[in-house]
Amino acid sequence: MAQETFIPHLKKTSKNMQFLKNSNRSAVLCALALKKASNRTELASYLNLTRMAISNIVNELRDHAIILEVSSTENEGEMDHIPNGRPPKQLMLADWSISVICINIRRYSVSCMLMDINGNTKPPMTRCLPAHADNAFLMETVIKLIEEARETFPKIPIIGIGVSSIGPLDIYQKHLLNPPDFRNIRDVDIGAPLEERFHLPVYLDNDMNCSALAELYFGAGTACRDLVFLGFSAGVGAGIIMNEKILHGFGGFAGEVGHISINPIGPPCPCGQKGCIELYTRGENILENTGAASFEELNALLDQENPPRFVLNSIKQYIDAMHTLMVAAANSYDPNIMILGDIDIAFIKRFIPDLEEYMNSHMLNHGYKHIKVIPSALAEAASLYGAGSIVLQRVFEGELSLPMPCGG
Amino acid sequence: MAQETFIPHLKKTSKNMQFLKNSNRSAVLCALALKKASNRTELASYLNLTRMAISNIVNELRDHAIILEVSSTENEGEMDHIPNGRPPKQLMLADWSISVICINIRRYSVSCMLMDINGNTKPPMTRCLPAHADNAFLMETVIKLIEEARETFPKIPIIGIGVSSIGPLDIYQKHLLNPPDFRNIRDVDIGAPLEERFHLPVYLDNDMNCSALAELYFGAGTACRDLVFLGFSAGVGAGIIMNEKILHGFGGFAGEVGHISINPIGPPCPCGQKGCIELYTRGENILENTGAASFEELNALLDQENPPRFVLNSIKQYIDAMHTLMVAAANSYDPNIMILGDIDIAFIKRFIPDLEEYMNSHMLNHGYKHIKVIPSALAEAASLYGAGSIVLQRVFEGELSLPMPCGG
Repeated sequence: MAQETFIPHLKKTSKNMQFLKNSNRSAVLCALALKKASNRTELASYLNLTRMAISNIVNELRDHAIILEVSSTENEGEMDHIPNGRPPKQLMLADWSISVICINIRRYSVSCMLMDINGNTKPPMTRCLPAHADNAFLMETVIKLIEEARETFPKIPIIGIGVSSIGPLDIYQKHLLNPPDFRNIRDVDIGAPLEERFHLPVYLDNDMNCSALAELYFGAGTACRDLVFLGFSAGVGAGIIMNEKILHGFGGFAGEVGHISINPIGPPCPCGQKGCIELYTRGENILENTGAASFEELNALLDQENPPRFVLNSIKQYIDAMHTLMVAAANSYDPNIMILGDIDIAFIKRFIPDLEEYMNSHMLNHGYKHIKVIPSALAEAASLYGAGSIVLQRVFEGELSLPMPCGG
Repeated sequence: MAQETFIPHLKKTSKNMQFLKNSNRSAVLCALALKKASNRTELASYLNLTRMAISNIVNELRDHAIILEVSSTENEGEMDHIPNGRPPKQLMLADWSISVICINIRRYSVSCMLMDINGNTKPPMTRCLPAHADNAFLMETVIKLIEEARETFPKIPIIGIGVSSIGPLDIYQKHLLNPPDFRNIRDVDIGAPLEERFHLPVYLDNDMNCSALAELYFGAGTACRDLVFLGFSAGVGAGIIMNEKILHGFGGFAGEVGHISINPIGPPCPCGQKGCIELYTRGENILENTGAASFEELNALLDQENPPRFVLNSIKQYIDAMHTLMVAAANSYDPNIMILGDIDIAFIKRFIPDLEEYMNSHMLNHGYKHIKVIPSALAEAASLYGAGSIVLQRVFEGELSLPMPCGG
């Protein structure tokens, strides 16, 4: 573990030699963190760089105890299969050499967790947001959680703080705007107070975008470049990853697929439209419509030999809306995989074969591609992992650099 | 005009010195072509590069007669307003120094046009696709059009061929797949025969994506980074530009917003769903539903003091569907502007104030942003301009480089 605490800084992208060095180093960190390469030869091939360029970067990061080099003889077995010469030394990023603080702001609670560049985590800590919680209470809670995390693990060098939150947000100003039904909390500057208090860069993004990125890096989407994460809790929304980046749109509001109106005579939605997808597919409406108190209860009902008729009717309406949503998302974004999350995994899993079949046979241009549907691998932790992932993405893209002797 | 014909070549992106040089030169070409900067100072500021770096690139391109340097004294007026010293020399790209061939494959015709990096064009030539047209006929038509264009303007150096086409397409293999109702044409390799015949790189993309990029470069979206182009001819689809790039998705099929089902008891759609947006909003259905033979006739009907009741009812249904479509597109992609095209401009223009108002008051998170709605500036030529634009984008991104003495 690197004992020295790095103080990172932000810089503008200028395409000079420094940019080049920084960009290639970031690419090496990314390739090793996300397991796209595990030795110098693979790095050179994956990044289309010379062995010399790779070696310069790897040696420098090794000297800073960020990269560990392991002779394969130190590993178990497999020596017999090397055809000739010594096996290449395996490279890995040292656990906790580059680490981030993850904050997840939910409607009724705030969580904090330390995560490193390999996706290792420390146990999260959660505090409730009581009914009287206001802006000051929220920020005090966040700050206390971060202080506790740092005090508990004082030797872990932190390079940034990522915050995932219910929206709407101004992700550029790092402000929480005006989420509906959110205690007495609205119009909160998240970024500046944390940056001032902790002297670390702070990034903010909505929970769906964060979850999507976390699945790309550490969850169900590690083999993909283009994925859609659909979340179904209090609202329905999507986090879209296109070409390994979050699709933000102009104001950071892209992915609100829950507010596509799919029925002109459907019930009114607070957004002003009628029959929005969200009204048929969000978690609390499913429970209300089936009369179940929880997803455990609903799962038990559905496991019965003859589930009640009204439950089946309600599930039919739910599945019809899910069909429309998933075809709409497939046609709008054309992802490689679609991940369903932010909902009881045992419940959603039972419908996945049908949903995947329907979507793939009803999306336009079907027959030319197949979109895989899978449940979230990170489940309820997706958004918390995602908070850290938005910081790591800045490292991988060279926007957030580690101050090394040679610059950065 | 540069008299020498450049033979460009493709190369892999490798982040070495050559990449840097190429990347910065491409950025200069892009900034000048798209009027983001017009002298060395503005270039340095816009691209965050040193004056020295800019001068090296500018001088090299000037020596190749690609950049023209014009003293402001040669321009009209404005001298009085320069506070001190000589005014900076204006830079511009020489007309027809970097040029492309644009091919647009439509359902009943093929068009060909020469375009340069500044968006200047030569008059297009169009050939019909008769009922008996098959794959061979299509490719012979395209090849003949290109030969004619080159013979007509033999001194214009061409760097690539762009093809925009009705879909579905495999844009990566450069194949036209199986468009519905497309003569006897299906499964056509577009790329290889043209590359072999003309020794030029060929790019293929669908008409909506091409139109969107053309509007970004030369049309209604030049001030934007994130836009949605909605087209309403035989089908309804979208071209999405996010962060100045086409949003393709995994297979190149993104943007098919015409096949979002907005009415579960609507008419059946050939895609397999019911009540798809396309059924209510595509050009031919509007005419059929209002009983008008053409948009000229429909416009005349709507200009009457008391248009027929059934026409108004039909228009009401059309507008309701447009509302749902545009809110869905705003919520899904969060663009800065939305461009309506591939339809009679006089017809669509009359509804734009209502559409813009409805969308901006019904999209989620309204109040935090305003999306402007505008008619296509390139109108029926958007897709043809777009064919050239997908080649220029490769130049701007450094993927397609001009072979210069110093490499590229």
